Amino acid sequence: MARIVMKFGGTSMAGTERIRRVANIVRAQAARGDQVAVVVSAMAGETDRLVNFCREANPLYDPAEYDVVVASGEQVTSGLLALTLQALGCKARSWLGWQLPIKTIEAHAKARIDEIDAPALIAAMEAGEIAVIPGFQGVSEDGRITTLGRGGSDTSAVAVAAAIKADRCDIYTDVDGVYTTDPRIVAKAKKQKAVTYEEMLELASVGAKVLQTRSVGLAMKEKVRVQVLSSFIGEGAPPADDLPGTMIVSDEEMDELVEKGLMERQLVTGIAHDKNEAKVILTRVPDRPGAVANIFEPLAAASINVDMIIQNVGRDKGETDVTFTVPQSDLARAQALLEDRRDSIGFNRIITDSKIAKISVVGVGMKSHAGVASSMFRALSDRGINIQAISTSEIKISVMIDEDETELAVRVLHTAYGLDAVS
Amino acid sequence: MARIVMKFGGTSMAGTERIRRVANIVRAQAARGDQVAVVVSAMAGETDRLVNFCREANPLYDPAEYDVVVASGEQVTSGLLALTLQALGCKARSWLGWQLPIKTIEAHAKARIDEIDAPALIAAMEAGEIAVIPGFQGVSEDGRITTLGRGGSDTSAVAVAAAIKADRCDIYTDVDGVYTTDPRIVAKAKKQKAVTYEEMLELASVGAKVLQTRSVGLAMKEKVRVQVLSSFIGEGAPPADDLPGTMIVSDEEMDELVEKGLMERQLVTGIAHDKNEAKVILTRVPDRPGAVANIFEPLAAASINVDMIIQNVGRDKGETDVTFTVPQSDLARAQALLEDRRDSIGFNRIITDSKIAKISVVGVGMKSHAGVASSMFRALSDRGINIQAISTSEIKISVMIDEDETELAVRVLHTAYGLDAVS
Repeated sequence: MARIVMKFGGTSMAGTERIRRVANIVRAQAARGDQVAVVVSAMAGETDRLVNFCREANPLYDPAEYDVVVASGEQVTSGLLALTLQALGCKARSWLGWQLPIKTIEAHAKARIDEIDAPALIAAMEAGEIAVIPGFQGVSEDGRITTLGRGGSDTSAVAVAAAIKADRCDIYTDVDGVYTTDPRIVAKAKKQKAVTYEEMLELASVGAKVLQTRSVGLAMKEKVRVQVLSSFIGEGAPPADDLPGTMIVSDEEMDELVEKGLMERQLVTGIAHDKNEAKVILTRVPDRPGAVANIFEPLAAASINVDMIIQNVGRDKGETDVTFTVPQSDLARAQALLEDRRDSIGFNRIITDSKIAKISVVGVGMKSHAGVASSMFRALSDRGINIQAISTSEIKISVMIDEDETELAVRVLHTAYGLDAVS
Repeated sequence: MARIVMKFGGTSMAGTERIRRVANIVRAQAARGDQVAVVVSAMAGETDRLVNFCREANPLYDPAEYDVVVASGEQVTSGLLALTLQALGCKARSWLGWQLPIKTIEAHAKARIDEIDAPALIAAMEAGEIAVIPGFQGVSEDGRITTLGRGGSDTSAVAVAAAIKADRCDIYTDVDGVYTTDPRIVAKAKKQKAVTYEEMLELASVGAKVLQTRSVGLAMKEKVRVQVLSSFIGEGAPPADDLPGTMIVSDEEMDELVEKGLMERQLVTGIAHDKNEAKVILTRVPDRPGAVANIFEPLAAASINVDMIIQNVGRDKGETDVTFTVPQSDLARAQALLEDRRDSIGFNRIITDSKIAKISVVGVGMKSHAGVASSMFRALSDRGINIQAISTSEIKISVMIDEDETELAVRVLHTAYGLDAVS
């Protein structure tokens, strides 16, 4: 007997037919004698529909009312999954964010989970009832509906798992685990049996869309065992393997897996790519103290996430070019903010380029091995791929390249780091 | 300064464009200095969509989870109307059923409002904030979402009006008031300035679709002043007339209106028709004590509403035919229930007929005037319209006729009772 949280995304919940597939997977889990809580997203497309209604109603919408509207999507799917489970003979009920309650803090539309009252939920699960919980939503201190920001259902699932001290949080997605890279680009990409929290955190933040970044951080902090697996397994049949997906584990667990021969020690765990960034170059910025702060402070104040930054060596005396990347969705806003401050910053031109890609290699093995970066640069330059910028963390190296070379770069690096599966 | 509840139905809320029209009407009301609470339905078609999801998920659906799903329709429109009002410069917020709370009793999917906690609502309205309240929904004693049954938003509006001691509850519909009969059948139908609660109750129960029957009963009990008026008045402009629709009033108020010459004393206030009934004939039922109870008890237990009942004079010794009407939507269920009990009831055949109509004339004037019924029968027989059954109350006479003669019968009676407008 284990206590399991299962999370299903919008594609899995898109319509009553697919909800029936989900219900069969949930029933199979419960049939093993496990206590089960299910966290669900809205039907695919529904949140977009509701967000559009809000924009049409009021372009500068009040986030508190926005939350009332968009939280309805998960309310519907949680009720429907409970009904479907009942039709399959299971005891089940929905628990809305305000009913548990899932208490949140900070702003509407981007709330953070503060606390989940779990006793009633645990009692119901112990009595054999499957709990269905809408993801993405909670309730504020003054009793109003809140939402966690797009993709928040992963975070809801991990938070529920932490609150009920679940043995595992299974995140069902449309891929069957975490791969060494995108299998649509590299056919020989391998599914990993396990990756560490840190690696997953870096992979999520550099474009691997398997898990929402915030959920991985929460899982690491709360020591929640997370498994990523596919919701497209055989209808109703329990998975053949006990853990068919990819486990997200601590460094210590990873060491154990390697010792037992269940995992190979790898320098690089995954290669991610992200085409959603844009490059901004400000030319002829005065090369004096405070100049760079003048550029990045207003962007930070506007919650625009700046990633790679390069300050070119001064071309003329006392002047320099500053290059950085922002999400493409924030590019127009960033440009407007900088134009407004042209005089105080003192730059000459703004040059922007959306046709770039960020390629990242991630692996805890880098901590103890030198040469990972240089072999990356060597492999790319051997194929004539020009590196426009570089950023690194302890377990990640990212390079900015021309967008057209994305797939080539991913394939070259996958081979270079010895990740191609022997088939 | 008055305190006004305004209620808008699904047609008025169908899409952000129409919600903007509603917001303009609400803003015009608030601009008069009135305190305003708005009760809204789901977008037209949305409740049907959600009900269908529930049926697909589980044909024998759990009403508690059904309520979770279908209540989301009004949650969405209440948030959107609050957003739209804000876009027009008004202070506004939504108050969901569980937030006020609107406490309900009895079963899910057909709950009844028990109590509404109004102090917070009143305080917000007194501070100049427009309150937007989703109709149709409440919360049960154990904190779960409930719904009131289809058309329940009218009842929500009247209940809110009673709770906050509103000066008036304005029900905006797609007609501009209560007419002497359906203007699509009789072009000379007149809009009534006022009808009494009792008359409205009878009219609502015999097929006039202006107001939900239960809401009229509640308004009568709680002495809520109700006005029925059109939501298709000029965009944003306050109505030219102070009370442009039809007021639902007490007998005493009606007497005052007549004394002041504002209303004429009428024998008949309205003529309604209803094509949604079906006739059931059980032949050769034993003519002994308890036989009729055997027929109607199982129907009542199944919540099937039996209206007109005729027990024909025994054709053979000791046997009789029993004729009655049920809603067409319940006909199949009624037939199945009766077939199951064929032996215990002891009838010979069941004959059913959906091609009937019920024509009703309603008016408090009948209480003190004889001859209303006989002039009805005379007018119909003069035009060769055969009356198949009759039922009466203190202020209503209904007859069952062939469905094909519906429009003719309505026109004949409208003229016979002197209701045709002089144009």
